[in-house]
Amino acid sequence: MTNYDAAFHALADPTRRAVLVTLAQGPRPVSELAAPHAMALPTFLKHLRVLEDAALIATEKRGRTRHCALRPEALRPLEGWLAAQRETWAARTDRLADHLERENPDV
Amino acid sequence: MTNYDAAFHALADPTRRAVLVTLAQGPRPVSELAAPHAMALPTFLKHLRVLEDAALIATEKRGRTRHCALRPEALRPLEGWLAAQRETWAARTDRLADHLERENPDV
Repeated sequence: MTNYDAAFHALADPTRRAVLVTLAQGPRPVSELAAPHAMALPTFLKHLRVLEDAALIATEKRGRTRHCALRPEALRPLEGWLAAQRETWAARTDRLADHLERENPDV
Repeated sequence: MTNYDAAFHALADPTRRAVLVTLAQGPRPVSELAAPHAMALPTFLKHLRVLEDAALIATEKRGRTRHCALRPEALRPLEGWLAAQRETWAARTDRLADHLERENPDV
């Protein structure tokens, strides 16, 4: 089940969004993910933990290095939530237009 | 221009998402929006301010009441951002499958 609080919170930070953009191109070791970010490693690891707790990424230890991968299926429910609100609004606007047309057929 | 930090932060709260679900059905006065939420009015107004600062809703004063409306166009860039990451990942997975098929045509 999607934790919308955790997922949207994880997305509300530019470092974490940049990590997701990189991981969309394929899994990466943590060291490679961290390199472009000008911050202490523990700070960066906290960002990864927020993404992992929100189930947006998965991490896996291989030997002595930890690898991260995007969980693309976690993005769908978020898109779905946003689309649902937009479509509810659009359906209402269409009904309103139909109603006005029936009330004022000559306009 | 979309402020992704502010928009995703605004979405990371159940009260604020509930307000957006209600507003998707049409504009509402603040008093009507606040009624189902068991919290002090100032707390609720802070949630509305977060949504307004993120440009997810617009508010307008009519006489003595303030009305809120969804800004559905603000949802599109967020959906687009999520879809872009998902599609980048999918394209990569497709390329990988093609590559494996060429390397192992008999499998």
